[in-house]
Amino acid sequence: MINSVFGKLLNFTSIGDDQYQAPVAPESGGRLFGGQLIAQGMMAAHETVTDDREVHSLHAYFLRPGDVDSPTLFSIDRVRDGRGFSSRMVSASQNGKEIFRMMMSFQVPKSGLEYSSQSMPAVPPAENVDTTYSDFINVHRADEEGPWPGKARPIDILYIDASDAISHKAIEAPQRMWMRVKEALPDSQNIHDAGVAYLSDATLIDHVLLPHGHRWYEPGFAGTSLDHAMWFHHRARADEWLLFEHRTESTANERGLAFGRFFNQEGMLVASCAQEGLMRWE
Amino acid sequence: MINSVFGKLLNFTSIGDDQYQAPVAPESGGRLFGGQLIAQGMMAAHETVTDDREVHSLHAYFLRPGDVDSPTLFSIDRVRDGRGFSSRMVSASQNGKEIFRMMMSFQVPKSGLEYSSQSMPAVPPAENVDTTYSDFINVHRADEEGPWPGKARPIDILYIDASDAISHKAIEAPQRMWMRVKEALPDSQNIHDAGVAYLSDATLIDHVLLPHGHRWYEPGFAGTSLDHAMWFHHRARADEWLLFEHRTESTANERGLAFGRFFNQEGMLVASCAQEGLMRWE
Repeated sequence: MINSVFGKLLNFTSIGDDQYQAPVAPESGGRLFGGQLIAQGMMAAHETVTDDREVHSLHAYFLRPGDVDSPTLFSIDRVRDGRGFSSRMVSASQNGKEIFRMMMSFQVPKSGLEYSSQSMPAVPPAENVDTTYSDFINVHRADEEGPWPGKARPIDILYIDASDAISHKAIEAPQRMWMRVKEALPDSQNIHDAGVAYLSDATLIDHVLLPHGHRWYEPGFAGTSLDHAMWFHHRARADEWLLFEHRTESTANERGLAFGRFFNQEGMLVASCAQEGLMRWE
Repeated sequence: MINSVFGKLLNFTSIGDDQYQAPVAPESGGRLFGGQLIAQGMMAAHETVTDDREVHSLHAYFLRPGDVDSPTLFSIDRVRDGRGFSSRMVSASQNGKEIFRMMMSFQVPKSGLEYSSQSMPAVPPAENVDTTYSDFINVHRADEEGPWPGKARPIDILYIDASDAISHKAIEAPQRMWMRVKEALPDSQNIHDAGVAYLSDATLIDHVLLPHGHRWYEPGFAGTSLDHAMWFHHRARADEWLLFEHRTESTANERGLAFGRFFNQEGMLVASCAQEGLMRWE
């Protein structure tokens, strides 16, 4: 396993019977990051699948808040192995309570008709974007909230549309960011897939407040992820800049649904994702 | 339980321990319709949830082809009951093999900030649309494929964009249909939610071939659903006309991902869904 912050996160211990103990988060304080559960769960499930197949989709629910300081136990259910596909269910628990459940599907790669509904949005290249997401949040976040724990995560996020978000206007436009895992990763597609999934949960639900003129760093706002789904269209490297585009589909009933898309630097749509989150002020 | 074709479909028998035996499909021949598994699974899961909560999302995988002539056994796992949410997992099996697994989340209804990214597309009202989906398929389908089994389902589908689809052009435009369960349903929101989910699986994956100038009724094309996800934004009645809009997000690797949206007749976005399907010629 790779010797780096992200690599260490994925460096779990097999304890037999398709069960794995995963290391604790790099950040401290607060709730366990959902992207970590997804990435660790993907790596654990991948251990139980033959090497000829790659993840093509996942569907997860966050069941209870996780504790960043506790190790997580992952248990894999080998739901089905077919000729072309394998299905797995991943259950994560801490201190005997289930905090996360994810279904995944793996496919033996095939070539097929290729179509993408979306072309790359016109954005400045990453080297021309100055605002990091963690700086943006830390500048605007209320003092009593403390620094954003996401800053400790091994990822780079450059917020292209930060100048719009600074205003308190209602924003309906898609929000766009350059993202990557900020360390070189080995050439294993499953590690890159886990990296892209890790990135996809870092900001997606934050923006469901924008159409209302609210911001996710307001004091007392408690936004938490309820679910996460992801579909992988083309192989991508998580340690190279990917453009992530968020859109808010709907909010109602204290819930908001957001869709996201990753494009690689060649402009190819490589993955799509969806997340519903809770929108509540405490 | 209601006495009608759709009502009979949902009229399963409790056999104890959160297990239910569901009746067979109204159609004959071919594979079991995925929408039936989703709707029956929703009703079975709802039996295990207190009456104060309604489904707000579901994520399902189709694991093996189902047999329309065999009854289906549903087993519910009561994953979690919290103050505001309940989580359930549904497993469906036939002849001892698991064919379907679905995670669901129920919520005690709340009021919250309301936003919809989409307004109702400009479409003719249902009474001005002449082409039913089953007639459209049966006219164009190759003789050796036999009649479309979906015709026996208790739903009405009016295909607004049929005249485009008749051509063999590559079509990227969203495809739109008016849909409803074609019998009056009682005023139970869980039955209407199951009805909308049943509708959502009837046509969604068919259209991932359109951008390639292919059609789903071509001889030898084997399109099957891999997964299905759905988010319910506002209460809707399944026995009144709903506008369903399909969009193809991506195709690659013998897979296609489609997104769908339901609008009620007042133009409100009431639900969103996603489905990935296999695109293979046999």
